[in-house]
Amino acid sequence: MSESADPRPVSGSHSELVRWMGIEDANLAGLVHGGVVMKMCDEVAAVAAIRHCGKRIVTASVDRMTFVEPVNVGELLACSATVNAAWRTSMEVGVRVEAENPRTGERRHTSTAYLTMVALDDDAKPTPVPGLVTETEVEARRQREAELRRANRLAEREQIVGGRG
Amino acid sequence: MSESADPRPVSGSHSELVRWMGIEDANLAGLVHGGVVMKMCDEVAAVAAIRHCGKRIVTASVDRMTFVEPVNVGELLACSATVNAAWRTSMEVGVRVEAENPRTGERRHTSTAYLTMVALDDDAKPTPVPGLVTETEVEARRQREAELRRANRLAEREQIVGGRG
Amino acid sequence: MSESADPRPVSGSHSELVRWMGIEDANLAGLVHGGVVMKMCDEVAAVAAIRHCGKRIVTASVDRMTFVEPVNVGELLACSATVNAAWRTSMEVGVRVEAENPRTGERRHTSTAYLTMVALDDDAKPTPVPGLVTETEVEARRQREAELRRANRLAEREQIVGGRG
Amino acid sequence: MSESADPRPVSGSHSELVRWMGIEDANLAGLVHGGVVMKMCDEVAAVAAIRHCGKRIVTASVDRMTFVEPVNVGELLACSATVNAAWRTSMEVGVRVEAENPRTGERRHTSTAYLTMVALDDDAKPTPVPGLVTETEVEARRQREAELRRANRLAEREQIVGGRG
Amino acid sequence: MSESADPRPVSGSHSELVRWMGIEDANLAGLVHGGVVMKMCDEVAAVAAIRHCGKRIVTASVDRMTFVEPVNVGELLACSATVNAAWRTSMEVGVRVEAENPRTGERRHTSTAYLTMVALDDDAKPTPVPGLVTETEVEARRQREAELRRANRLAEREQIVGGRG
Amino acid sequence: MSESADPRPVSGSHSELVRWMGIEDANLAGLVHGGVVMKMCDEVAAVAAIRHCGKRIVTASVDRMTFVEPVNVGELLACSATVNAAWRTSMEVGVRVEAENPRTGERRHTSTAYLTMVALDDDAKPTPVPGLVTETEVEARRQREAELRRANRLAEREQIVGGRG
Repeated sequence: MSESADPRPVSGSHSELVRWMGIEDANLAGLVHGGVVMKMCDEVAAVAAIRHCGKRIVTASVDRMTFVEPVNVGELLACSATVNAAWRTSMEVGVRVEAENPRTGERRHTSTAYLTMVALDDDAKPTPVPGLVTETEVEARRQREAELRRANRLAEREQIVGGRG
Repeated sequence: MSESADPRPVSGSHSELVRWMGIEDANLAGLVHGGVVMKMCDEVAAVAAIRHCGKRIVTASVDRMTFVEPVNVGELLACSATVNAAWRTSMEVGVRVEAENPRTGERRHTSTAYLTMVALDDDAKPTPVPGLVTETEVEARRQREAELRRANRLAEREQIVGGRG
Repeated sequence: MSESADPRPVSGSHSELVRWMGIEDANLAGLVHGGVVMKMCDEVAAVAAIRHCGKRIVTASVDRMTFVEPVNVGELLACSATVNAAWRTSMEVGVRVEAENPRTGERRHTSTAYLTMVALDDDAKPTPVPGLVTETEVEARRQREAELRRANRLAEREQIVGGRG
Repeated sequence: MSESADPRPVSGSHSELVRWMGIEDANLAGLVHGGVVMKMCDEVAAVAAIRHCGKRIVTASVDRMTFVEPVNVGELLACSATVNAAWRTSMEVGVRVEAENPRTGERRHTSTAYLTMVALDDDAKPTPVPGLVTETEVEARRQREAELRRANRLAEREQIVGGRG
Repeated sequence: MSESADPRPVSGSHSELVRWMGIEDANLAGLVHGGVVMKMCDEVAAVAAIRHCGKRIVTASVDRMTFVEPVNVGELLACSATVNAAWRTSMEVGVRVEAENPRTGERRHTSTAYLTMVALDDDAKPTPVPGLVTETEVEARRQREAELRRANRLAEREQIVGGRG
Repeated sequence: MSESADPRPVSGSHSELVRWMGIEDANLAGLVHGGVVMKMCDEVAAVAAIRHCGKRIVTASVDRMTFVEPVNVGELLACSATVNAAWRTSMEVGVRVEAENPRTGERRHTSTAYLTMVALDDDAKPTPVPGLVTETEVEARRQREAELRRANRLAEREQIVGGRG
């Protein structure tokens, strides 16, 4: 993998994982475990980040993950991800989760997640990632929102550390 | 689900499952178990068949599944399926398996599979499936090849039963 | 379970899950998958929330989850959780993750997570939860910080929806 | 393992795997996943092939696998395999799957499978396998049927490639 | 299931489970987890007990389980069981575990286990089991040894309770 | 790890594993598999033994494991262990298993287990373990009972080997 920092388009990072939810994914209420969804979101975010930077990566944080609707056993779960923003050694990846009943074709948005992934070199130290080129208005908006989430996160940390005196 | 036998286009059955191969999928040589690939092919074929007929289905047979190249741990495995032909209560589903290294983006065709799935009614008895409408030359060719495989399969059964005398 | 909303102490919700990380939990770098940690955090947060409200619950969101240090295969992973704040039908649960090498006894803080859980009645509708009684200064501080995170989250949503115009 | 190509009897390859089907093996209809059966057939075929050639092997194809009857959770699944025919570097392995209810002792034939396995040397290249000695009329018949399946498979490939023009 | 207490021969309870040990069964030293062996012994003992009594059963105790030699990943693990003795509602089941390297055919005895299983009626209450008919000298000896282990177990309980006095 | 044989207190070996029992842990009666409990007991005993000796260990035997009450899916299963006695290269570890319903807080003792673990050096040979210091009357009693179980075990082996003539 060359160290080239040539910026790359958002579209180059697009990734999708799709699994059919079975009994082993269910909780006692017969719904898919939140933890199963989290694990798939982490995996697809890792794939998108690797596609962007071409390096080994590690999850630094889940910045926000919402569970809008429960997922049923027997539904297909599709997790799609793109890199929303790239900083020096880290990237925000956005993940959209949709559930689909294959008998009816009905498809629902069930979760959204934002994760921060960090690129690592061969010594497992953070290493620079390529810049990100947004090519559509939606991509540009997602980049602005990623910057906003990051600024809020840093500000919140200040508030909390300050409050702890 | 209505009992309507309105024929449906091949494209309506298109299905894809994508998983990232981990250590739990590996054999002792560090390659993905053939059995893991078989299980994913069976799942995606079931999804395609359900999309076509809108009913519960069961796998009747694997008619042919080839392993062209081994799959490595760390690769994405994408299994895509469509219904190739529909008979009275059964369908042939074709599955194409591709492996991709997310760091390099290199993608390889690793397996092809053909499975026969049967639609079941609420009493678990075979039940009619909608006809299949091919819309492209490739789809029409796949339908002809499915008919050929089926004819060969029936002929082979005759040969073997005859040979057993 | 009575509908009594008698407030309950933070200590009543304290929960812990402890697992020994094996090969099935590792990624290809030999470290524990982030997704495995997320799944355990979700589980222990669910247990803490159930202890507080005595009802069935569902995960509404992961509000923040940081991965401070990687976890090695062969380490014990201990996830401990308490309810930090209780609102009408929802609770913030804080989770602390520690990894320990049983041969040396060395213990490290590896992750922190905050999740929002919602109590459900028998029709799967949100239902009121008991109030929360903080009994120590640390508990009171955590409750203030939970309120802060929630206010920031609602403000951020406004910013983003506003920005989308 | 010596390179000796001394032919070996069919009986030397006989192998059996037996598992008790649990909830983790079930689909939503409460029956055992076809994929679970396929995975066990692949495993037992690999064991039989290794017993015959004493080398590392890889699955080249599933040539035919039928699902005669569904398998219930709670049944014992026994997959038994023998090498039916050996060519230069490949072998056909036949697998018979039987399900048994341990409470009643009732045993049913549920699947038949034929797989082609290839022996590999230390560089993962195909390597010669010992010849096969049939010692009973049933073994000789199975060898003839394996040759027939192989000839049909090669002829079918010709038909399809020819048909694609 | 009839309530008939017609005694049954030891041979009627003979049961075997066979699995191929993979990476998912290994500990960090690359050997098969003791817990994996224990789980398989429990399963095969349950099958043997069900075969003897034709009823639902539950494990009451593991009376002795030794690990003579470690099991390697890549070996076949065969657990075979028979009922050694039957009392009013309980049975002792003996399990012999053997590991086999399929490349060399070398087979080793790796564990022995004795478990007590109890038959349950439809209300999950202990219920009588058929008597046991020993047909060989080995079976008669195993029955005597089972009686000895049981007497020792009861005596030991007395010693310990007395010692706590 | 130094080779120092400085004796260590029982309390230094105290270990606990806690898991929430899900559908994947259940048998067909909806109760937790005995094998799942055995596997957790083996793991926690290994952790306690490693804490005592600071070395790699192997399970030599399960000397006694009782299943007092069934465990339900949805309960928390807590397995806690301490070293009861230390001999030259081996240790007896006692394990107490408790199940808890998180909705009601009701906690029940469901199993007790005693396992013998052996310390291994880098060549996988048995190696000396530190002595054990009991600091409470309960610990001293447990040590006496461990000695008793060991003496009985050796005596039983004599009886059986003698009886086999």
